[in-house]
Amino acid sequence: MELLVRYGTEEQKARWLIPLLEGKARSCFAMTEPQVASSDATNIESSIREEDGFYVINGHKWWITGILDPRCQLCVFMGKTDPHAPRHQQQSMFLVPMDTPGIKIIRPLRVYGGTLWVFSGGHGEVLFEQVRVPKENIILGPGRGFEILLGRLGSGRIHHCMRLIGCSERVLALMKARAKSRVAFGKPLVEQGMVLADIALSRVEIEQARLLVLKAAHVMDVAGNKVGALDIAMIKMVAPSMASRVIDRAIQVFGAAGLSSDHPLAQFFVGVRVLRLADQMHQRSVAKMELKHRS
Amino acid sequence: MELLVRYGTEEQKARWLIPLLEGKARSCFAMTEPQVASSDATNIESSIREEDGFYVINGHKWWITGILDPRCQLCVFMGKTDPHAPRHQQQSMFLVPMDTPGIKIIRPLRVYGGTLWVFSGGHGEVLFEQVRVPKENIILGPGRGFEILLGRLGSGRIHHCMRLIGCSERVLALMKARAKSRVAFGKPLVEQGMVLADIALSRVEIEQARLLVLKAAHVMDVAGNKVGALDIAMIKMVAPSMASRVIDRAIQVFGAAGLSSDHPLAQFFVGVRVLRLADQMHQRSVAKMELKHRS
Amino acid sequence: MELLVRYGTEEQKARWLIPLLEGKARSCFAMTEPQVASSDATNIESSIREEDGFYVINGHKWWITGILDPRCQLCVFMGKTDPHAPRHQQQSMFLVPMDTPGIKIIRPLRVYGGTLWVFSGGHGEVLFEQVRVPKENIILGPGRGFEILLGRLGSGRIHHCMRLIGCSERVLALMKARAKSRVAFGKPLVEQGMVLADIALSRVEIEQARLLVLKAAHVMDVAGNKVGALDIAMIKMVAPSMASRVIDRAIQVFGAAGLSSDHPLAQFFVGVRVLRLADQMHQRSVAKMELKHRS
Amino acid sequence: MELLVRYGTEEQKARWLIPLLEGKARSCFAMTEPQVASSDATNIESSIREEDGFYVINGHKWWITGILDPRCQLCVFMGKTDPHAPRHQQQSMFLVPMDTPGIKIIRPLRVYGGTLWVFSGGHGEVLFEQVRVPKENIILGPGRGFEILLGRLGSGRIHHCMRLIGCSERVLALMKARAKSRVAFGKPLVEQGMVLADIALSRVEIEQARLLVLKAAHVMDVAGNKVGALDIAMIKMVAPSMASRVIDRAIQVFGAAGLSSDHPLAQFFVGVRVLRLADQMHQRSVAKMELKHRS
Repeated sequence: MELLVRYGTEEQKARWLIPLLEGKARSCFAMTEPQVASSDATNIESSIREEDGFYVINGHKWWITGILDPRCQLCVFMGKTDPHAPRHQQQSMFLVPMDTPGIKIIRPLRVYGGTLWVFSGGHGEVLFEQVRVPKENIILGPGRGFEILLGRLGSGRIHHCMRLIGCSERVLALMKARAKSRVAFGKPLVEQGMVLADIALSRVEIEQARLLVLKAAHVMDVAGNKVGALDIAMIKMVAPSMASRVIDRAIQVFGAAGLSSDHPLAQFFVGVRVLRLADQMHQRSVAKMELKHRS
Repeated sequence: MELLVRYGTEEQKARWLIPLLEGKARSCFAMTEPQVASSDATNIESSIREEDGFYVINGHKWWITGILDPRCQLCVFMGKTDPHAPRHQQQSMFLVPMDTPGIKIIRPLRVYGGTLWVFSGGHGEVLFEQVRVPKENIILGPGRGFEILLGRLGSGRIHHCMRLIGCSERVLALMKARAKSRVAFGKPLVEQGMVLADIALSRVEIEQARLLVLKAAHVMDVAGNKVGALDIAMIKMVAPSMASRVIDRAIQVFGAAGLSSDHPLAQFFVGVRVLRLADQMHQRSVAKMELKHRS
Repeated sequence: MELLVRYGTEEQKARWLIPLLEGKARSCFAMTEPQVASSDATNIESSIREEDGFYVINGHKWWITGILDPRCQLCVFMGKTDPHAPRHQQQSMFLVPMDTPGIKIIRPLRVYGGTLWVFSGGHGEVLFEQVRVPKENIILGPGRGFEILLGRLGSGRIHHCMRLIGCSERVLALMKARAKSRVAFGKPLVEQGMVLADIALSRVEIEQARLLVLKAAHVMDVAGNKVGALDIAMIKMVAPSMASRVIDRAIQVFGAAGLSSDHPLAQFFVGVRVLRLADQMHQRSVAKMELKHRS
Repeated sequence: MELLVRYGTEEQKARWLIPLLEGKARSCFAMTEPQVASSDATNIESSIREEDGFYVINGHKWWITGILDPRCQLCVFMGKTDPHAPRHQQQSMFLVPMDTPGIKIIRPLRVYGGTLWVFSGGHGEVLFEQVRVPKENIILGPGRGFEILLGRLGSGRIHHCMRLIGCSERVLALMKARAKSRVAFGKPLVEQGMVLADIALSRVEIEQARLLVLKAAHVMDVAGNKVGALDIAMIKMVAPSMASRVIDRAIQVFGAAGLSSDHPLAQFFVGVRVLRLADQMHQRSVAKMELKHRS
């Protein structure tokens, strides 16, 4: 939706925004491909050719969140329109109605044999075979897929960092409550040095991440995403691994109960692992910006 | 089974060993309780009273592996026979046939919404209400539960360390194969410093743990579990966190695929987390022995 | 000086503040003792008895910063006036002019065979034997040493966190400049994943610590040290280990040159190690406050 | 010396081995250069030209251990004889008597303002200007410097790993003795969870490194350095960082005393940092061998 608001034409908005905002329809985003390391989006290989005033899409995508939901009516598809253009101008994005012929859902993807808390509706693996969309379904224009991606990821994805801080606060509260109520080796957990260290480390890591997310949000608000690019990349790099450590400590304090479905820790543990996949990518962005602009 | 072989009477062996060895029956082990930190086994609170030549068992147990399996015919139960005895002589162990009245399975326990690779048959939460067993079902004698536990855990549990090393080797092989086949940011993964570091760290950690497990097994073979106690505690402390790090690195190299059910990494990731729960307990044992015997 | 301003009587201020402010005199602080773990100040054992209207001090102190400086005219001494009082009211603080008979400097203390950047004037080990001071030299009153300590350490010591952030920024700038100018294994350092990761990690850790120190300072300014106690403890816990990691990474990028006296890194490395000594103490404070006030 | 024994001609051995073995003379090794990242030895730039039956050496070297010792009579010099040869055949090694004209010692190098325990005699920075040596002073032949280096580092340098294990054992013994004798926050250190964890981690890390060094030595003895290459690289990668962690924990247990010259910890801390400089280089070797030979 944010993508439509920012980059859509008036026609595109008129057609899709209202049902999406009303919650009658939902959309999905088809980027990741099983054949290539998709955290580097220039690797994406799905082909999109022009033909008779249409674009014809062929590709194999997976981890498409929400595509299994019956309400899903729109797919934003990213693929290669011009393999010979400069590396960051080869990709374009398209609006693909889900009822277009040629979209074949292969299977739902399971993670750890279950579904994930962080995403609703599950994720699917999908084939796009000779899927034809009208030329006006392109977003922003040919070769501008990467540009949109940067814009969308820059603004859209800091939400999850905020959620991770909330999640970590809840986990720390659970850890403290547990530590106060349990005894091991003759002493309340709350008087044991290791547990105190775990609580202290969790508190300082959460607090520092909170301050960084607040700073990033503030810079975005007053000076825009471009000025805030380093702060945005920093918090994306920091938040998942921070949450991951806090959750892991809490599980240790809980013992076996921490992994049962009686508590939310195991779900958090597993969900946060997914978000950590992008760690190196964000590290790379932070380092590149740091080297370019700050020395 | 090892427990029966080592501590069982001739009658107990005659009754149970053959069906267990033939795989017609299986047994389960009821130790952990939801109310107390059970990694310190002196915390265990289930009550066992003598009455009319029987022992009467009341208690609430969970994480009983295998109890849900229809073939499970025998439960080894640990509980408190004498609350006034010295701390390590309060517990006793009993053979409880699964068809004894009063055993109520409350629910299967789910971990991350699924079942775990490391254990077969799932784990259950179970109530024991007025469960009566004949006096001769006691193992070794009253107040000797802790002693059996030390013996059994000492010998029995090094198996999982060996399995963890095999598991880690397989994971490293997967990581290498993946790194050879993928390109990101314009370079094969196999030429990227971070990936090389991950491979090198995994190799040295696996190799060191392998040598330690071999040493522990060797000392146990030639000098017995008592002499090998420190080595046993060391490998138990080391193996789960080692495997945990190796698996986590492999997932990072695989990206989203690493968390899908197409590869075993996600299952390993989740399974190993369970084994890490005992880390602090083993750390404590290593430190105590180190302080006592080596200075 | 801050201590005098806050806790001194008018007479004490009149006598000492002007020469200290003018830099004609300097003071030192005698707290740490070689016989006890002095990071827990209730362990301090130096005895202070009343006798004929005087206090008589006997004790053995070390790591007294500045006492070797010829300009040092005043020693603030902490010791036990009442061993039978409640644990936090046994200690008192005194102003001891350096020309009082009985103060015997045993030796300068050397660290790594050299002196440290973080402190000026070196540190001494000193005996106090039958040192007599007038009763009015007590600060705040009998049994209030611990209270003063809490107040002083709360306000005084956040300075070093600010300096550590400045130090870390300089180190990161050096690391970046070096990475830009060097080639290893056929590639500029600045294109190597490990070096990029080091730069990124350093940047996010510095930035988060900076935000935390700014928050702590702000809370102290607007709401006072008491309200800011948790923030103060947090930044003290965070800053030394953060700087330590940044410096260590820079040394790795510099290679042998990083340890030579051509660059400041080795001195920073060694100086920061001293500051990390208090890590567990601050961890403990953070955890205790977190458990008390936040749940 | 090992280098001479293995690669020297009969004449070279006759001239130098006896005085070296008798301790009347000592030798030094001139490899590292201030201008390039010398952990990648192909970067070495010192020029060596043939002229009138002599080799003429020009170069700038530093960190030459032992060159300041008056007994130092022989320098083994590595430089580039053929810049146009394949990358690993450009370098050659020479025996350069220290009384050859043109060797100018610029300065002793200081580390942390002191000298280092690990090396005797200090290290120097030295200019070689038009230093002429006879053709027969070449070792093994033109372009074989890299080959010698691999051979020498393979065999020579595992000694320091053994010493690091001995050093770590001593440090752990000191840590335990200290922990037994001190009280903080109302409890003996030896009953505090953090200290127990530090002792346990140190024990398992030392033990694993010991087993690895024993394995590497054993493989070298029975199958030679080539077969043992991976094991050798592994222990070199592992030992310095292991020792570094053990020492750091001990310093934390000692507090300020750990950094004073009353105990050896500060010297160890600083000395081990030097050895960690090569960590990435060894990581790289391990990873490359692992990828080549094991999959």
